[in-house]
Amino acid sequence: MRLSRYFMPILKENPKEAEIVSHRLMLRAGMIRQQAQGIYSWLPLGKRVLDKVNRIIREEQDRSGAIELLMPTLQSADLWQESGRYDDYGKEMLRIKDRQDRPLLYGPTNEEMITDIFRSYVKSYKSLPLNLYHIQLKFRDEIRPRFGTMRSREFLMKDAYSFDLTREDAIHSYNKMFVAYLRTFARMGLRAIPMRADTGPIGGNHSHEFIILAETGESEVFSHKDFVNFAIPSAETNFDDVAGLQAIFDKWTSLYAATSEMHDEAAFDAIPEGDRLSARGIEVGHIFYFGTKYSEPMGARVQGPDGKEHLVHMGSYGIGPTRLVPAIIEASHDENGIIWPASVAPFDVVVINMKAGDEACDGLCDRLYDGLGKAGKDVLYDDTDDRAGTKFATADLIGVPVQIIVGPRSAANGEVEVKDRKTGAREVMTLEAAMNKLLA
Amino acid sequence: MRLSRYFMPILKENPKEAEIVSHRLMLRAGMIRQQAQGIYSWLPLGKRVLDKVNRIIREEQDRSGAIELLMPTLQSADLWQESGRYDDYGKEMLRIKDRQDRPLLYGPTNEEMITDIFRSYVKSYKSLPLNLYHIQLKFRDEIRPRFGTMRSREFLMKDAYSFDLTREDAIHSYNKMFVAYLRTFARMGLRAIPMRADTGPIGGNHSHEFIILAETGESEVFSHKDFVNFAIPSAETNFDDVAGLQAIFDKWTSLYAATSEMHDEAAFDAIPEGDRLSARGIEVGHIFYFGTKYSEPMGARVQGPDGKEHLVHMGSYGIGPTRLVPAIIEASHDENGIIWPASVAPFDVVVINMKAGDEACDGLCDRLYDGLGKAGKDVLYDDTDDRAGTKFATADLIGVPVQIIVGPRSAANGEVEVKDRKTGAREVMTLEAAMNKLLA
Repeated sequence: MRLSRYFMPILKENPKEAEIVSHRLMLRAGMIRQQAQGIYSWLPLGKRVLDKVNRIIREEQDRSGAIELLMPTLQSADLWQESGRYDDYGKEMLRIKDRQDRPLLYGPTNEEMITDIFRSYVKSYKSLPLNLYHIQLKFRDEIRPRFGTMRSREFLMKDAYSFDLTREDAIHSYNKMFVAYLRTFARMGLRAIPMRADTGPIGGNHSHEFIILAETGESEVFSHKDFVNFAIPSAETNFDDVAGLQAIFDKWTSLYAATSEMHDEAAFDAIPEGDRLSARGIEVGHIFYFGTKYSEPMGARVQGPDGKEHLVHMGSYGIGPTRLVPAIIEASHDENGIIWPASVAPFDVVVINMKAGDEACDGLCDRLYDGLGKAGKDVLYDDTDDRAGTKFATADLIGVPVQIIVGPRSAANGEVEVKDRKTGAREVMTLEAAMNKLLA
Repeated sequence: MRLSRYFMPILKENPKEAEIVSHRLMLRAGMIRQQAQGIYSWLPLGKRVLDKVNRIIREEQDRSGAIELLMPTLQSADLWQESGRYDDYGKEMLRIKDRQDRPLLYGPTNEEMITDIFRSYVKSYKSLPLNLYHIQLKFRDEIRPRFGTMRSREFLMKDAYSFDLTREDAIHSYNKMFVAYLRTFARMGLRAIPMRADTGPIGGNHSHEFIILAETGESEVFSHKDFVNFAIPSAETNFDDVAGLQAIFDKWTSLYAATSEMHDEAAFDAIPEGDRLSARGIEVGHIFYFGTKYSEPMGARVQGPDGKEHLVHMGSYGIGPTRLVPAIIEASHDENGIIWPASVAPFDVVVINMKAGDEACDGLCDRLYDGLGKAGKDVLYDDTDDRAGTKFATADLIGVPVQIIVGPRSAANGEVEVKDRKTGAREVMTLEAAMNKLLA
C-alpha cells in the first residue's frame, strides 16, 4: 500500500479524552474513531489489525474442531423470555421495537439463540459433540463506556457454544477451548493466565478468565509467578485426546491464580512470598461450563444411546477481538508508539523513502515495494513528500515490526537501512540483503 | 471437513414458507435459518459461501484502489438530522433509544457517517481521490421482508464511498467501481447487465443498477441482448487510466438497458425486434454519483490547488452479499439442488464414502481427504453411515462442483468415480488420476 493513496489519519496531538495508553495510541495512529459514545469505526489501519486478530482466533477455533456460523445482531425478545434472562439483563440490554411494535434486542450474547438453533435440528447424541462459534457484533449498553474499544458498547465478540451428552463430555469440550485459548493468545504475543472466575449473568459453576498482565488492567489479580514459564500447547495437539487435554488443563490450573472476585487470601498467602504475583490484569477471554442452565428451560434434548431423551450440557466461550487489539497495545508499546507482534501487525514492513522524487531512492523503494509485495508481504510504502522526521515518527507510532529506510546517500550505493521497531537496532545493507532478511 | 463432525442440517421436506427456489434450496441445504421475521442466521454451509462471496468483493474493491474500514452498525441520529434524511427515511429506519434516552438508529446505509469521517480528517485535495468501503450489517425495516435473504431486514452490504475534488474526477471514481462491479459479478459466474436506474433515497443523477436475469426477478427489465457477449475487463485493467475506463463504461452503456422505472418505450422499440430482451431481473449492485448532496449540508470541503475551499464530489456503491448468495442460486440450480460456480462453492469437492467401515473405501477416502486438503482444496468428506442414495441426494442438493464417489467394488481396484455436478458426467478413474484432475 502506498501511503500517498492510503487513508491513515495520524493525529499529532495527544487526544484529551484518552485515559489509557492504548486508547491514545489507537487514536493517534488513526486506527479508530468514536462515532457515538462507546461506538467506534475501525479505520483502515485498525481494520487490518482486527482482521489479523480474527484470523488467528478462527484458525485456533477451527483447529479445536469448532464450526463457524454467523448469527444476526438482532434477536427476538421471545427467546430471552423463554430462558428467563429477558428481565435479568437489566439496562445493559438494548431493547428495540420494530415498526410492527414487536420487541427485539441487540444481542449482548447468544446462548439463547444458539440453543434455539440446536434444538431445532439436533435430535441424537450421534451428532455430538458439537461446538458452534461466530464472530459477531454485540451491544451492551454500559453506563460508562471508556478506554476506547477496550470497553465499548458496540463490540466484536467471538462466542462459541458447546453441546454434549454428559458432563464428562462437556468438560472435554471445555478443555478443548481452554487449550485453543492458550494457543490463540500466545500467537498474538500475549501471555494469558487462566484464572478461576465468577460467572456473572452467563451462569454456571466452572469458569475461567484469561488475563494478561498490564498496569492499566481494570481488575486486580493474584497468581503464582511460575505461569510465565509454562509451555504453550503445540499446533500438533490432538484435540480428541481426552486425557492429554485434561493434563494440559490440570497443569495450567495447578498453581494459584484468581481475579479479585474469586480471591482466596489464605491460599495466596500459602505461596512462598517470592513466588507471589499481585498485579493488574486485562480480561481477554472468558469460558464457562454451565450444564443445563439453558437446555432445561429451552428444552434442548437429544436421544441418548439408551434411547431416552437427555438435556444437553453446554458451555460458552468468549473472546473480544475489539478488546484484544488495545490489550495487545497495553502489553507492547514504548514512548514512541505501538510495537506490534509480527502476527497481528497491520503491515509486515514499512519502506520509508526519505527523498521521494530522488531517482535512486525511488528506484530502490519501487524494487522493495514490488519485490516484497510479490513475495506475499504486506508492505506499507511511505512515498509521501513529508519530512524525514515526520516519516520516522509515523513509522514508530504505527508500530510496524520492520522499517526499511531508503536515503539518497546510501541509495546511491544500492544500500538501505533496516530498523527493528522493537529493539531499535539499525543495520545498513544492500537491497538484496534486506530482501533476503525479510523473506527469510 | 468430515461430515460426521460438521453441522449441516439438511431438510428432507420442502419448507412451506419458501416462495422462490433459492430460499427453498438454502433452507433445505441447511445454509440459513430464520430467527425472526427477515432476520437470519447463516449456518456453517451458508457462512462458507458468504465468505467466498465477500472475498471476491474485497479483492475487486482493493484492486480498484478502494480502502477497507469498518463502521459500526449503530449510528447517532444527529448525523442524519444534519443531512436532512432523518425524517425522510420513514419507517424503514430502525430507531432506537439507549439507556440515557439518546436517539440512535441501526444504519440502513452510511453516507452520513462516512462524510463525517471524511470531513474530520481530510483537508486537502492532495489526499484525493479517496474511496472508502466496508462490509457491514445494515437494517431496513421493510414492511414485507421475503424470499429469505434476498429481501431480509438485517442484511450484509458492501458499501463504498468516493470523494473527489471535481465532477470529472468523481466520474472516474464512478467508472472504477463500474469496472470493479463487472469483474466482481463475472467472477461469481454471473452475467450482470448495468442499467440506468432511479436513485431513490440515496439521491443523485447518475446511477446504474447491475441486474442479473432470472425468472424470479423482482423487477422487469429491458435491454439489448448483445450484452451477453461483451468481454469482461481483465484483471490487468489499469484503474488509473481515465480514458481506458471511460471507454469500458461507454461500451457497456452503448446499448439500451433499463429497469422498468427508467424504461423508455420508444428507445426500446428502436432496437431491432430480434435483439430486444424483455425479462425479469435481480438487482445485485447499485452505484450512484450524487455530487455534493451530502458534502454540502455536512460541510465536507477540501482546499484545492487554487488555495480555496471546495465541496467534495461524492458517489456511493453498494453490493449486498447476503442477497448475492440467493441470486447466484437463482441463476444456477437444477431440480436436484444448487450448482455452485467453483469460485463461491462452500467446498471444492465432496468425497462420498459409499460404505463407511469398508477397509478399501475408508483407505481411499482418507487418502483423498488428506491429499486434497494438503493441496489446499476445501474438501467435504461424507464419512457418515447414511444410505448411498441419501449421500448422493445431499451432494447434489448442496451443489459442490465435483463429487468423488468411492464404492466398495471399484475401491478394491483402487478406482473411484468422479462426477461433475453441473453436467452430471461421471468417469471412473484411479485415485491418482482423480487427484490430478482436481489439482490440475
